[in-house]
Amino acid sequence: MSATSSAQPVLIYDTTLRDGSQGEGVSFSLQDKLNIAIRLAEIGIEFIEGGYPLSNEKDVAFFEQIRKHDLGKSKVCAFGMTRRRSMKAEDDPGMKALVAAKTPCCTLVGKTWDFHVTEVLRATLDENLAMIGESAEFLAGHSELIYDAEHFFDGYNANPEYAIKTLEAAAASGAKWLALCDTNGGTLPERVAEVTRIAKEAMASYDVGIGIHCHNDCELAVANSLAAVDVGATQVQGTINGIGERCGNVDLIAVIANLALKKENTTVLGGRPLQQLTELSRFVYETANLQWRNNQPFVGQSAFAHKGGMHVHAINKAASTYEHIDPTLVGNERRILVSELSGRSNIEAIAGKYNVGDDKELQNKILAEVVRLENQGYQFESATASFDLLIRRVSGKFRPHFETIKYRVVAGDRDVKSQVAFAEAIIKLQVGDTLWFDAAEGHGPVNALDAGLRKALAGAYPVLSEISLIDYKVRVVDSGSGTAASIRVNIESTDGKETWGTIGVSDNIIEASWQALVDSVEYKLHRSEA
Amino acid sequence: MSATSSAQPVLIYDTTLRDGSQGEGVSFSLQDKLNIAIRLAEIGIEFIEGGYPLSNEKDVAFFEQIRKHDLGKSKVCAFGMTRRRSMKAEDDPGMKALVAAKTPCCTLVGKTWDFHVTEVLRATLDENLAMIGESAEFLAGHSELIYDAEHFFDGYNANPEYAIKTLEAAAASGAKWLALCDTNGGTLPERVAEVTRIAKEAMASYDVGIGIHCHNDCELAVANSLAAVDVGATQVQGTINGIGERCGNVDLIAVIANLALKKENTTVLGGRPLQQLTELSRFVYETANLQWRNNQPFVGQSAFAHKGGMHVHAINKAASTYEHIDPTLVGNERRILVSELSGRSNIEAIAGKYNVGDDKELQNKILAEVVRLENQGYQFESATASFDLLIRRVSGKFRPHFETIKYRVVAGDRDVKSQVAFAEAIIKLQVGDTLWFDAAEGHGPVNALDAGLRKALAGAYPVLSEISLIDYKVRVVDSGSGTAASIRVNIESTDGKETWGTIGVSDNIIEASWQALVDSVEYKLHRSEA
Repeated sequence: MSATSSAQPVLIYDTTLRDGSQGEGVSFSLQDKLNIAIRLAEIGIEFIEGGYPLSNEKDVAFFEQIRKHDLGKSKVCAFGMTRRRSMKAEDDPGMKALVAAKTPCCTLVGKTWDFHVTEVLRATLDENLAMIGESAEFLAGHSELIYDAEHFFDGYNANPEYAIKTLEAAAASGAKWLALCDTNGGTLPERVAEVTRIAKEAMASYDVGIGIHCHNDCELAVANSLAAVDVGATQVQGTINGIGERCGNVDLIAVIANLALKKENTTVLGGRPLQQLTELSRFVYETANLQWRNNQPFVGQSAFAHKGGMHVHAINKAASTYEHIDPTLVGNERRILVSELSGRSNIEAIAGKYNVGDDKELQNKILAEVVRLENQGYQFESATASFDLLIRRVSGKFRPHFETIKYRVVAGDRDVKSQVAFAEAIIKLQVGDTLWFDAAEGHGPVNALDAGLRKALAGAYPVLSEISLIDYKVRVVDSGSGTAASIRVNIESTDGKETWGTIGVSDNIIEASWQALVDSVEYKLHRSEA
Repeated sequence: MSATSSAQPVLIYDTTLRDGSQGEGVSFSLQDKLNIAIRLAEIGIEFIEGGYPLSNEKDVAFFEQIRKHDLGKSKVCAFGMTRRRSMKAEDDPGMKALVAAKTPCCTLVGKTWDFHVTEVLRATLDENLAMIGESAEFLAGHSELIYDAEHFFDGYNANPEYAIKTLEAAAASGAKWLALCDTNGGTLPERVAEVTRIAKEAMASYDVGIGIHCHNDCELAVANSLAAVDVGATQVQGTINGIGERCGNVDLIAVIANLALKKENTTVLGGRPLQQLTELSRFVYETANLQWRNNQPFVGQSAFAHKGGMHVHAINKAASTYEHIDPTLVGNERRILVSELSGRSNIEAIAGKYNVGDDKELQNKILAEVVRLENQGYQFESATASFDLLIRRVSGKFRPHFETIKYRVVAGDRDVKSQVAFAEAIIKLQVGDTLWFDAAEGHGPVNALDAGLRKALAGAYPVLSEISLIDYKVRVVDSGSGTAASIRVNIESTDGKETWGTIGVSDNIIEASWQALVDSVEYKLHRSEA
């Protein structure tokens, strides 16, 4: 639609792992961070900010471990602040931590707003310029340097000359990017455009790109980011699903989709198709253990859901009548809420992915089973092994390797000897004509069940010794009923070569966990026969 | 900030009760609709669209009953479509239903997009103009008429001359307002501004106001609405919290706050203060039985929540450093989250709130305890009751109301009679010199523990009968160790007046849940003594 920006290359900078983790209720484990970084690289995000190595050991470990992964053209960035007031850059612990992270990029944040310099930093305006310049110079000697100008728009309002000087301090000292931050999220699009244009013109003599970093406090973060791109910003910083402090950062999902599909900018994500956006969004929600935002633009479950009879009638005549884009462009799907049935595009997608072929009857059976289970709270996005078993069951190719005769767990607060909480499981299974009975202890009831299940099957299926569990997640599906709510358990397992996810749902967490554990074992046994 | 619109009066048109009810999972009872309409009038919303009287009896009853209430200057609107193709306006059931609603305003929706006229309505372009004109003329004889131009922006793109003709048909027949609808939500702000300006100029010879009606499919509905106001729209249509079909309508909360506080338009809501906005937002969520959107701009629970230690440090020096507006302007409040990213600044801020005072030694002890517990996986940002108990413990003001002698749960897969998974808890507690022993069943082990705990304490503390659990969340803190990972349980409880959050962490989910349950009960008992 807007011709001005269609040819201009725009790079995407993701800070889900750093600024996103400032969001209320967000807390990533090391493995979560690695998993997310790998997915971001797969989809073609150019910059992946991994964390703040000075702040905690988890981020230090992240930078160490992410180096072992091939992220293609994506560059990992370590984040830090300008050096302390009375310290050389090379002696500053934050600078040292950035260098030690050994990332291809560093992101340095510094103060723009004179008020912050004098009142928060307690530095003079000149001292702050020196802190920016010397920190930038030091870091630019080690990696590609992105300078984040904190509070740029508020700072520019307060003291425009000084705000531009802070950018110059960074640009003159080797920064390759100057990202203008609307840190408080209070700026309107027309002002973002105006000030970004001024900053870009002021920096025209330096070899730097301009970036934009918006927060959503006025529900304008997407509009603000697009406005900055319209006037020449070539890097957009944000987070997947807009997670982040207060009202969040800008949602990169909406930024990417708007740039590529609405602004028709063919450079976004290197020109790749966007079919992975919906899956990426849901993967990040699941990893962060956050509720999906159903009405999220482009990727929400309701984003292409039609309820009004008039709309459904029209949609049946021509999809474009009530849809601004084809939902499959972003990997989403149309839903007609009257029938609660997913569209045929879903079945075809499934058919393609799992080699179901053109058997329409089988496709319909699979779809019906997915709908039935989703209504109970199942979600197969990250439970691909359970989904594989579902297809085997529906198509008659599932052969159970054992039958559960009974399981039981006992958990309480006092082990007689250790005086700490305990958990024990007893398991009885049938394999062919043989009954296997065993018991195990664990750190909790699910750990005990897991140990007991594999112990009981060890004699019949020695191959199970290769399995270990690497993640276990619990979600209340239908909150509002307190501890009687329905509970979804996701388990991730590995045999050292492959990892797979399984799921269980029940109002009893023990039963839900047992389902997911059984699926994990059955999947491994089916795979090892293939 | 933007001087262009500050003197221009802008009226707010709420369609929560009609377009909002198209949202997935939204369903209002008659009483819900009356309650919401009354609240909208109290806050000064000028137009309140109540429903579509042709479509159902509930809306007919709404219009009958709302007439009995004094809504001040607010006008109730009944919504309907243009007359049927081959029928006089006065004979059309939809027209009759609108007149029968006896509202001060009617809102008539008609087709702008030529494609919709010929392919969905199966009418000629001229027939559609006659349907608009004759329907408008008929209704304008009964009430103030608002004409909603469906798909105006898409229709204008397809056939600009025809789109303008549809507006003329309504304006020439007595419509007082022409609301331009971005029905599919796919238009960008610059295009909304451009086309709205053209429409306004084309209608300059009529005595009509221009309205704007946006949907959020590109996460741009607020920006689009503001862009239309900037070029002369004087009515904004939307819903409270942006509820509505697909990605929702524009959120009027953000529109109102941006117009009044950012655009400094003193006419919004008749110039009233906005302190009721947060309460209105939550009232609508509760009435619609929808989850609050915590990161909602202006009114969300997290909208002014600060987690990063650096931010909190600055906030303590001057609130404006990380807040774009004073949260009390919209009836919201600042929250300081205790988190792994927090430092002394957060503790000082919280100490202020909990009357810890200036006792540095006590503050240090609290900080040390928070750090110790955070390293174990505790997070106090939503567990404010557990944090309150922590402060009581550290400052020597905690008095335990009971001692756990033992608890134990048994869970398994076969209840002898029902043949489904079962869970039972036994509990032994000491209160003073008395031992209380009890047992309970539940849907799962935690539900059983919860029931058993309160059953065992009912004799000693009858006040506990007021408590119920309203949410239960489980999170694996340190994933990567499978089922032996550390588990964090968050519980939210209520006594009908107050709600409070508690937390427990353990590698055993049963033990973690027990901690959170005990904290919930202890908090209630401490509060009921205060």
